[in-house]
Amino acid sequence: MLFIMSKNISLDDIASLAKRRGFIYQGSEIYGGLAGTWDYGPLGVTLKRNLVNAWWKFFVESRDDMYGIDSAILMNPKVWIASGHVAGFTDPLIEDVKTKKRYRLDHLLEDAGVDVKGMDLAAMVAAIQEKGVKSPDGNELGNPANFNMLFRTSIGAVEDEASTVYLRGETAQGMFTNFKNVVDSFYPDLPFGVAQVGKAFRNEISPRDFIFRVREFEIAEFEYFINPENWEAEFEKWRVAMHQWCEEILGLPAEKVHELEVSKEDRAHYSKRTIDFEFDFPFGKKELYGLAYRTDFDLNNHQRDSGKNLEYRPKDGSPAFVPHVIEPTFGVDRTLMAVLCNSYTEDEVNGEKRIFLKLPKHLAPVKACVSPLLKNKPELAAKAREVYSMLKKEIGVVMWDDNGNIGKRYRRQDEIGTPACIVIDFQTLEDGTVTVRDRDTAQQTRVSISELENTIA
Amino acid sequence: MLFIMSKNISLDDIASLAKRRGFIYQGSEIYGGLAGTWDYGPLGVTLKRNLVNAWWKFFVESRDDMYGIDSAILMNPKVWIASGHVAGFTDPLIEDVKTKKRYRLDHLLEDAGVDVKGMDLAAMVAAIQEKGVKSPDGNELGNPANFNMLFRTSIGAVEDEASTVYLRGETAQGMFTNFKNVVDSFYPDLPFGVAQVGKAFRNEISPRDFIFRVREFEIAEFEYFINPENWEAEFEKWRVAMHQWCEEILGLPAEKVHELEVSKEDRAHYSKRTIDFEFDFPFGKKELYGLAYRTDFDLNNHQRDSGKNLEYRPKDGSPAFVPHVIEPTFGVDRTLMAVLCNSYTEDEVNGEKRIFLKLPKHLAPVKACVSPLLKNKPELAAKAREVYSMLKKEIGVVMWDDNGNIGKRYRRQDEIGTPACIVIDFQTLEDGTVTVRDRDTAQQTRVSISELENTIA
Repeated sequence: MLFIMSKNISLDDIASLAKRRGFIYQGSEIYGGLAGTWDYGPLGVTLKRNLVNAWWKFFVESRDDMYGIDSAILMNPKVWIASGHVAGFTDPLIEDVKTKKRYRLDHLLEDAGVDVKGMDLAAMVAAIQEKGVKSPDGNELGNPANFNMLFRTSIGAVEDEASTVYLRGETAQGMFTNFKNVVDSFYPDLPFGVAQVGKAFRNEISPRDFIFRVREFEIAEFEYFINPENWEAEFEKWRVAMHQWCEEILGLPAEKVHELEVSKEDRAHYSKRTIDFEFDFPFGKKELYGLAYRTDFDLNNHQRDSGKNLEYRPKDGSPAFVPHVIEPTFGVDRTLMAVLCNSYTEDEVNGEKRIFLKLPKHLAPVKACVSPLLKNKPELAAKAREVYSMLKKEIGVVMWDDNGNIGKRYRRQDEIGTPACIVIDFQTLEDGTVTVRDRDTAQQTRVSISELENTIA
Repeated sequence: MLFIMSKNISLDDIASLAKRRGFIYQGSEIYGGLAGTWDYGPLGVTLKRNLVNAWWKFFVESRDDMYGIDSAILMNPKVWIASGHVAGFTDPLIEDVKTKKRYRLDHLLEDAGVDVKGMDLAAMVAAIQEKGVKSPDGNELGNPANFNMLFRTSIGAVEDEASTVYLRGETAQGMFTNFKNVVDSFYPDLPFGVAQVGKAFRNEISPRDFIFRVREFEIAEFEYFINPENWEAEFEKWRVAMHQWCEEILGLPAEKVHELEVSKEDRAHYSKRTIDFEFDFPFGKKELYGLAYRTDFDLNNHQRDSGKNLEYRPKDGSPAFVPHVIEPTFGVDRTLMAVLCNSYTEDEVNGEKRIFLKLPKHLAPVKACVSPLLKNKPELAAKAREVYSMLKKEIGVVMWDDNGNIGKRYRRQDEIGTPACIVIDFQTLEDGTVTVRDRDTAQQTRVSISELENTIA
């Protein structure tokens, strides 16, 4: 047997497998979709649950200093005024003067090979002119503007200014607005973190790259409240922990995860230091995670606008102060995408090409597949059902498959990353052993049924 | 020791405990809130996770016929036209002619003791006049209308009719629009279900009763696709399973869960039979869950509007047909509320009043609390930390508490429903035993540390 990486994989390879095998479908697909939305299918939702549960365990449950919350998507609009989103949560847009279609100015420039880092709207417009960049339809571009990405809606029975609310553009504000609640309920020692996993929304003008740049996405993040004196050490602590998460839990190779020190010009207005964690996706080195030192920007703004005291009172009696925060942010969809891309493998087994997902076992949506060697032999099927039921109770998600021949079943399970395929054959009826076929090596071994749980786990 | 149920508990008792102890906070509280939104605090999010995970295991993972999904909140607007929501997802409103405030017509009538079952808008207006019902401010009422509860927003850079989208008013449509995807990826045998847990939104005019009637809520439900010939048996199967869930997993007493057979006039337009599962909340017998036979209404509409074939092709070669569905729906927030209300207990221990949550152990957010008897004895604190770390690794969420005296710590843990409080005292240092105090009986027993995990689990 020979392993060959036959070609560079593309995003289309991943998206095609994701759809075919029930990981990810286009949102509202039967109606031609809705740009920038995606639906997780049965295997995708299980993979995502495994990822989120692993994150929650790693960053929240296993720690003594982390407090989970789940705040509402709809928040009082004053939150987004205080946070600066109503004024500044914008993307630069420019219009095709003929078709009136609007495009992301920075994307057009990037596609034309221009590095837009640090450019403001005026600089980008100048670059468009200098380079002679046209719209994708070949027309002139004009009428540039900053476009606010918050989705707006109205609450209550009367549509007027006072009832405008926004879909949250980030989950972080829920942690800031609940800072006082958590302190009042638990009076934790500083430093401590408030964490949540939830949906956020951005009215992206040009969603693209599969589930990478979308309008509705899931974020796992925490605000880690600190004494500002210690910010550098705390920042470093989380930088290391984020790499540990990538390597130990997600199985992403260290050489595919890069740090980008974000320059002052490119940092968000509230940040004094930001590192982007970039991953080598098939379409390039792109942002996976962020680590930002947000200072006391948000708590100060909320204290000012809400009139509530958001200071922390140290237990040793020293003066109260507004804590600063370190914020590690993890896109859940991007995490899933990185894991899928990293696992996607093509090789040859006995001269035949195969695709398989080399997922870490603890993340694989299906832990094992059970089959009778032949479908039409009742004694094999009965024994196989017995093994299936036993494993399902013991190790969670187990699949049953008796369609087609064994080779086809293996291929199907390879494509969804099932670590072990168990086949019940005539020898099973004699000596209580089954074959266990390993996803990565494609090798079969015989194992007794009583040893099966240990072998798989 | 004597147990006394000292009074009828009220919703205020529950809400007050939920806030004080970090289960549930008002949404956007520091800004005076946003009506109909709530944030889950550290204990609430853990309780909710335990509930959702139990639901997923019971209805999805442990079964062979269930396919989980996670579809986007933003969907193509054609979905909501086909489903009938754009035309008919309405509440009857009426205006205070003086203040111009709007009220739910049915709520005003119910508050005036009128049974509104089966009434349409005209009948309700007639009842208002007949009974002489006034607005809560004592003014005349006029200008009745049906108000659409879908939240609307705009997608893309141009706000016009074509770019209007809705926040989903129910999660069910995601299962219908993915019916074909699931069949194509997995080709399951009929009957099978498609399940999801996720947020839905309704622009309720008068949110009320804590987390009962809100604008943003979480739904766990599935569409169970069947051959219409079997609908009565399938309906019955799920009716029984829903009771099993309430009693065996949630610990709700059978006598507090009531079935209401919904009359033809009060059923949703798509339903041929609906049972509401009502629970005895402190504010009355109110809807907890629903079980509906939705027929082929939704798949037929989507087939017509999308032009896609949504038939199921039986494996035995018999003719293809559009399946019907049975839909069991579980409000996650209402589940949590029912569990909280059912657990809330007041009694007397040694003459002192105490409040405790009699939560089923597998749902309790904190499984155990570990304390040193005295805070300022380093040898006790060190041993207690050792026990704490061991248990945290073995059984999950464990709390550390060394504040105040032991009695106060017990009261705090009682209020959050922690089943076991473990105290390390001087005897621990001699013989390796600790005291384990039981939440429900308030009795202490001595247990050796090596037996602790078994005792608690």
